[in-house]
Amino acid sequence: MNKQQLIENIRRKQTFLCVGLDTDIQKIPQHLMAEEEAPVFAFNRAIIDATAPYCIAYKPNLAFYECLGVKGWQALEKTVRYIRDRYPDQFIIADAKRGDIGNTSAMYARSFFEDLKVDAVTVAPYMGEDSVTPFLTYGNTWVVLLALTSNKGSHDFQLTEDGQGERLFEKVLRKSQQWAGDDRMMYVVGATQGRMFEDIRRIAPRHFLLVPGVGAQGGSLEEVCRYGMNAECGLIVNSSRAIIYAGHGRDFAEAARRAAQEVQQQMAAQLKTIF
Amino acid sequence: MNKQQLIENIRRKQTFLCVGLDTDIQKIPQHLMAEEEAPVFAFNRAIIDATAPYCIAYKPNLAFYECLGVKGWQALEKTVRYIRDRYPDQFIIADAKRGDIGNTSAMYARSFFEDLKVDAVTVAPYMGEDSVTPFLTYGNTWVVLLALTSNKGSHDFQLTEDGQGERLFEKVLRKSQQWAGDDRMMYVVGATQGRMFEDIRRIAPRHFLLVPGVGAQGGSLEEVCRYGMNAECGLIVNSSRAIIYAGHGRDFAEAARRAAQEVQQQMAAQLKTIF
Repeated sequence: MNKQQLIENIRRKQTFLCVGLDTDIQKIPQHLMAEEEAPVFAFNRAIIDATAPYCIAYKPNLAFYECLGVKGWQALEKTVRYIRDRYPDQFIIADAKRGDIGNTSAMYARSFFEDLKVDAVTVAPYMGEDSVTPFLTYGNTWVVLLALTSNKGSHDFQLTEDGQGERLFEKVLRKSQQWAGDDRMMYVVGATQGRMFEDIRRIAPRHFLLVPGVGAQGGSLEEVCRYGMNAECGLIVNSSRAIIYAGHGRDFAEAARRAAQEVQQQMAAQLKTIF
Repeated sequence: MNKQQLIENIRRKQTFLCVGLDTDIQKIPQHLMAEEEAPVFAFNRAIIDATAPYCIAYKPNLAFYECLGVKGWQALEKTVRYIRDRYPDQFIIADAKRGDIGNTSAMYARSFFEDLKVDAVTVAPYMGEDSVTPFLTYGNTWVVLLALTSNKGSHDFQLTEDGQGERLFEKVLRKSQQWAGDDRMMYVVGATQGRMFEDIRRIAPRHFLLVPGVGAQGGSLEEVCRYGMNAECGLIVNSSRAIIYAGHGRDFAEAARRAAQEVQQQMAAQLKTIF
């Protein structure tokens, strides 16, 4: 999916919500565990059918599938294929935070873009240019590079200032723009970072930002929009636990639908200022 | 495996070689592809049987298994189980370069330590403390944290100096020692980094260093030992392509055996200076 299509979807559906498919097998409703042969996929399918009208993206978190071994990979493949077939206007982000030397990153890129067929992969910048660029050799796919994350540990290294006062996340933003433009690269910026979005926007005014941390991690949608939104929206805000675990019984999908719809309405209000 | 056992294995076998199982299905000998139902595992098994006397560790590179989807995970699980059962004195490192917010890192840790049952996982430091510490909650397992990698892109961010002249990789080495000691943490330092090993040893004199980049990437074993070896050896030097693809025909395992033995002999000569 290219940038124009993504913006068009946001405008048309009046939402920039990404639903995070952090599907923990220990939190799946009991009846699915009892009735379904592939409970993780059955859970995802119900969540996707319920939330698709209210979001423009899905983000499966690889850790939650890998921890189930072979069965987890099967669930992931089926989930991505299901979204592709049923909801072709959804943007799919593999949240994998990969990054390795060139030939290894190339193998990861092949997995995600050729086999799994997602639109985007999250990538960690620590190993530099040749760990990132192999993810840029596929047409119309995206790298979502970690810049300033939502967790407490983001303070450990990402805020370190160099001799000229440039912080590490700023260097990542600046340097990575030499590798790809805003039509191929996005950045992860945690919703908990508040006014730091202003600093981000000074360096990357036109890029889309993938924003986790609204909901369970405590970030505020309003604040993110105030400091991070640009004239094309420029935000994909992710919510995982607050949506997919909104309910725990037989009505879990309906609870997820209501939670997603509520966020969508808040987002529509924010979008009024630009579209 | 604890540090003392690892050192004892190095002393007894006179080697600190780690064989990297970067098994690329496109490079597997033709006859295996034709004859074997699970050619990746069949290849690994033959390589392991041939090289086990000459190494103390194996390092499967996750990318090469993930890119095969479900079949890749099966091959990885079978490979780790095979090493565990047949060669219990081998140290197994999952080269995954993971790192995510706490609850996600915890899921990865569970995959690697509870399900796959490896001894160590490589972890990327960009997201800081809470992305790393979930890997430290299992007994006798290790985090191998990226410090100064072997690739060209290592110059992009890892060498960035802060206002006090401390480089990012040095900050990673220093700060991470607050999270675990040299009995639970190792560092990745590329063999291509030459005299930088002296700088590493000033900050982490007693830690084991996992050293990729000898062979195909151009690093020198002699130089690594001159600047990086400590009184307990303190080095695990990885070689992947130069060993596992030493031969391409029916004699591929014998070729790998000879390549591994040759490195072992060079390592034995280096170990004479300390043991």
